[in-house]
Amino acid sequence: MKRSTAVALALSLGSGGAFAESGASLDTDLQAVSPVLDHYSRTRLADDLWKRNDLSPRDRSLVTLAAVIARNQTAILAEQLELALNNGVTPAEISETIAHMAFYAGWGNAVAATTVTRAVFNARNINAAQLPEAEATLLPLDDKAEDSRATRVQNNIGTTAPGLVKDTTDVLFKDLWLRPGLAPRDRSLVTVSALIANGQAQQIPAHLNQAMDNGLTRQQASGALSHLAWYAGWPNAFSAASVFKTVFEQRASK
Amino acid sequence: MKRSTAVALALSLGSGGAFAESGASLDTDLQAVSPVLDHYSRTRLADDLWKRNDLSPRDRSLVTLAAVIARNQTAILAEQLELALNNGVTPAEISETIAHMAFYAGWGNAVAATTVTRAVFNARNINAAQLPEAEATLLPLDDKAEDSRATRVQNNIGTTAPGLVKDTTDVLFKDLWLRPGLAPRDRSLVTVSALIANGQAQQIPAHLNQAMDNGLTRQQASGALSHLAWYAGWPNAFSAASVFKTVFEQRASK
Amino acid sequence: MKRSTAVALALSLGSGGAFAESGASLDTDLQAVSPVLDHYSRTRLADDLWKRNDLSPRDRSLVTLAAVIARNQTAILAEQLELALNNGVTPAEISETIAHMAFYAGWGNAVAATTVTRAVFNARNINAAQLPEAEATLLPLDDKAEDSRATRVQNNIGTTAPGLVKDTTDVLFKDLWLRPGLAPRDRSLVTVSALIANGQAQQIPAHLNQAMDNGLTRQQASGALSHLAWYAGWPNAFSAASVFKTVFEQRASK
Repeated sequence: MKRSTAVALALSLGSGGAFAESGASLDTDLQAVSPVLDHYSRTRLADDLWKRNDLSPRDRSLVTLAAVIARNQTAILAEQLELALNNGVTPAEISETIAHMAFYAGWGNAVAATTVTRAVFNARNINAAQLPEAEATLLPLDDKAEDSRATRVQNNIGTTAPGLVKDTTDVLFKDLWLRPGLAPRDRSLVTVSALIANGQAQQIPAHLNQAMDNGLTRQQASGALSHLAWYAGWPNAFSAASVFKTVFEQRASK
Repeated sequence: MKRSTAVALALSLGSGGAFAESGASLDTDLQAVSPVLDHYSRTRLADDLWKRNDLSPRDRSLVTLAAVIARNQTAILAEQLELALNNGVTPAEISETIAHMAFYAGWGNAVAATTVTRAVFNARNINAAQLPEAEATLLPLDDKAEDSRATRVQNNIGTTAPGLVKDTTDVLFKDLWLRPGLAPRDRSLVTVSALIANGQAQQIPAHLNQAMDNGLTRQQASGALSHLAWYAGWPNAFSAASVFKTVFEQRASK
Repeated sequence: MKRSTAVALALSLGSGGAFAESGASLDTDLQAVSPVLDHYSRTRLADDLWKRNDLSPRDRSLVTLAAVIARNQTAILAEQLELALNNGVTPAEISETIAHMAFYAGWGNAVAATTVTRAVFNARNINAAQLPEAEATLLPLDDKAEDSRATRVQNNIGTTAPGLVKDTTDVLFKDLWLRPGLAPRDRSLVTVSALIANGQAQQIPAHLNQAMDNGLTRQQASGALSHLAWYAGWPNAFSAASVFKTVFEQRASK
């Protein structure tokens, strides 16, 4: 089911109707209700934003998927999944991104995403053999960094929410983040994207620093932020921008 | 498809079932599950909130549409669209409000809204001739104000997110905000409503000031805030109220 | 329609498909798209989180329902309603929780919940006789506490949003909170849960204090917070945790 880049890009904007499993035709809805959004979808999204050099199409798809799942925007999830697969995001990476979002956006968001994703996978004959197993061989743990993190959290909220502290260690940092199906740099990218998408500025600095420690460049981080204005709204992007600025400045001055 | 005011008001509260395209009967759901919400919908919403003098029914509909789209509450969107049309919001204004929300609440929210809106428009025989064109003759730009805004943003986050800064100028302030299909005062009203609805208090002062500069009275702003408690929840209204208070006081002391 | 505890617990995790009215099979979606989430749902949710001693299964269900409604996660609402009924939450309490969420998460969230709930109620032959009436005999008002609250709010935002202040008194504190269908301690629990679930940290201290004044223990509050990490996402739980810590410390030092 190979498609041209032009078509793939067109899929980024609520204009993937022709390929939707349901027969729903989102592009026609856009045209019928908001001619200017249909216009922007071609001139501003497909022909501009998705082609900019500060972030690869593949990374843009990861960022967009994270935002769409984190905000429960199932109306555009199918077309974004199609675009992601066309942009080189693997089925395994999509599967792990959804699992990651269960923790960074909530269980129900991930469950809602699996229903849409299953239909897209089925249509492409993507099957279990292409997906990460439940119990994978984990990446090696950085004991020192993890001890430091765990101690900080324990000192902070250890007596306030011991159950939360325990799950954070056992499930998130000694399991989820070590799963090999999604590289740490990419986990950081989708985590930061989810935080921006849901307006959780307070949690951004730690994860943005980790993302950059994990290999995300400043240009890519900036590109992700600019990209997300379109999918998470300008107010979330602007609130995150001042946090990004501070993190960038602190890292530059080190 | 003229309807009485009483019916139109009834439509404001999850009781628009009789008119829903799908045959789903929301009012019956309310009655069947929560008799008290059904009771409030008549005594507190239809017979009280929507009739208060601090905001016109037409403005209440704009405010509610913005909140419902910004929060992706598609369950009550069809009935709110019906009510808006009955309250004098034009199809062109609805179209522009949806486009505006793509930027202030995220692309996926707007796309989801177009699907519901298309069905409502079709049922009323509203067609493309009644909607704003993609490329309209723009309102004149206030060069001085725009230079001041652009300079401030550039100084703030110009090196952090150059792509975002560019899109903010080119797409938002030199295009979207100048489109004639929705008056600047109304664009400000739906923008502030979206910010309240999504708990983005940090972004409220600039837009509330702009709204009042654009002609929104203090009484109307206050009425919109009180109205939104019902559609965006009390916590969002209370968080916004302290911001509104500060803005009102700063403007009064000038 | 009695079910075993094991099945009831399994229902907590997006694996309630076999019982869904629609025939949709969420558990199969999880398995098909994210084997690890399916694995976590059994090992981490059903066999661990839902069995912890810091919060009863019945309270966990109230907390989860509040979060799911507050975040409009309708994809897992039906299974959570089934689980809640199995855990001892009464139909009357579910009805009142939905009404309460209309005010603490927005009218549209409650309306969307009634549609799903009606189907679950119908399948269990739950009828109007088991639900609270619209106009119930109210619990006695604590005049002194209410005067103090009303005076504080009036001084704060009385001139900013008089309509909001009036509705807060008349509808919320002299009506909704006094309805007998849900105990004050439980209303506080679902209110705090909704605030955590929607990232409204600013509003948490007043309601958490009220919850504990209403009988919620520190251990239960902590358990609810840890529980919500799973259903509202880790970032919301962590942002709330520092607020909980401050409230716990302030109460301990009194």
